[in-house]
Amino acid sequence: MLRLFPEPAVRLTLKDVYRDVFFPERRERPYVLLNMVSSLDGKAVVEGKAGLIGGLTDRAIMRNLRARADAVMIGAGTLRAEKLTLDVPEDLSLERASRGLKPQPLAVVATTSGNIPLTQHLLNTSPDNLLIFTSPATPCSRLTELSRRASVETSASLLETLSLLKQRHAVGILLVEGGPSLNHALITEGLVDELFLTLSPKLLGGKGEGSGSLTILEGLALDPDKTAQLNPISIHLSGRELFLRYSLHG
Amino acid sequence: MLRLFPEPAVRLTLKDVYRDVFFPERRERPYVLLNMVSSLDGKAVVEGKAGLIGGLTDRAIMRNLRARADAVMIGAGTLRAEKLTLDVPEDLSLERASRGLKPQPLAVVATTSGNIPLTQHLLNTSPDNLLIFTSPATPCSRLTELSRRASVETSASLLETLSLLKQRHAVGILLVEGGPSLNHALITEGLVDELFLTLSPKLLGGKGEGSGSLTILEGLALDPDKTAQLNPISIHLSGRELFLRYSLHG
Repeated sequence: MLRLFPEPAVRLTLKDVYRDVFFPERRERPYVLLNMVSSLDGKAVVEGKAGLIGGLTDRAIMRNLRARADAVMIGAGTLRAEKLTLDVPEDLSLERASRGLKPQPLAVVATTSGNIPLTQHLLNTSPDNLLIFTSPATPCSRLTELSRRASVETSASLLETLSLLKQRHAVGILLVEGGPSLNHALITEGLVDELFLTLSPKLLGGKGEGSGSLTILEGLALDPDKTAQLNPISIHLSGRELFLRYSLHG
Repeated sequence: MLRLFPEPAVRLTLKDVYRDVFFPERRERPYVLLNMVSSLDGKAVVEGKAGLIGGLTDRAIMRNLRARADAVMIGAGTLRAEKLTLDVPEDLSLERASRGLKPQPLAVVATTSGNIPLTQHLLNTSPDNLLIFTSPATPCSRLTELSRRASVETSASLLETLSLLKQRHAVGILLVEGGPSLNHALITEGLVDELFLTLSPKLLGGKGEGSGSLTILEGLALDPDKTAQLNPISIHLSGRELFLRYSLHG
């Protein structure tokens, strides 16, 4: 693994990437990191799934970021699309402990429909470490069902969700791992502080939503005034994959 | 401008970027460079247009690549979408002369419908330096009209177009500047040798074709076997924009 920027270039081991970066605390809500992987033609989801785009290194970097977060959040669509875990392996649990963090980040799923295949698709997560945010529109029956397998809270907006994560659950650093609709909503509302983007050296094609191909942001065109230019903080290269870290604050 | 990769990092002036890179000759067709700019969320076209995504540096790099090419090709859709020029400014014309190239690269437009607003949208290009490739499906009336303003040739496939460019017009290096459909067709047929991708530090959103938002490749999902991993050749950073150069050959 080569850190190319800031220069001078430095070789480092995979497990040291993002190990010592500083994430500031915010008062009203968690400091929000968004981590995504996309192909060179901007595809973050193919055939409905994100899991096939990044390589082993990308997954290791994802775990490094999880090791730094108090909580990891995904949208329900991402969980419906494929089996996944939001946990970190044992060695990173130990590292978390040395940082004063709980062994596993709190797993957070955001849903409106309440339609989440928890048992089938969310692997390893213990019910007492799982928090589901529903909306006032979530059908009552689904809410009852979900509350048997996890803590369930209802919030009226993403801003409220983040505020609850900070106030009730002491989440200082929140890592968001998609999908594209949740990303878009967070970006639109100005709730993301940093973007970690893995550029996978592939060209995937695929024509829009119908084909199951999505970019990292799916939703209406953003107001250019609200999406100021992002600022590159670091650039790593491993094999053919690029790992870009951007700040969303000027 | 900072070249980050290959390391060690080197500062260089804008006009020296890609100035001395070597592009090999191919026998059957031109060596094909594809140059595109996209946002961090993979958008290469917003509101139907590509021109708003890259900054001044991106346009300078684009001209550097044009200075190296025997011909510059775009698809007709790109020309229908906005006014543009395929020329290089005077200083690069002089540099071309010193390389033994004609003052301007041959301007090539590929079209099936024959519907191209040449007079309104293609700026500066002289009729004797403009070549339009139509297809056997192009309506005869359009062909007549186009042939008043440019040289017109008909080819049955992109492979034939490239072959004609090489054999009849001595095009050794062809620079393709989109749009997404032409890119997709070239990539699908394995006709691209290098990808130059400018990553503009923006998040643009926009939902698929209907909204006028497109990625650099628009078309069916690609066969993963035919789209081997691309290989990063160089990485430049200028301000907040990244300039990536990839080889499509292993």
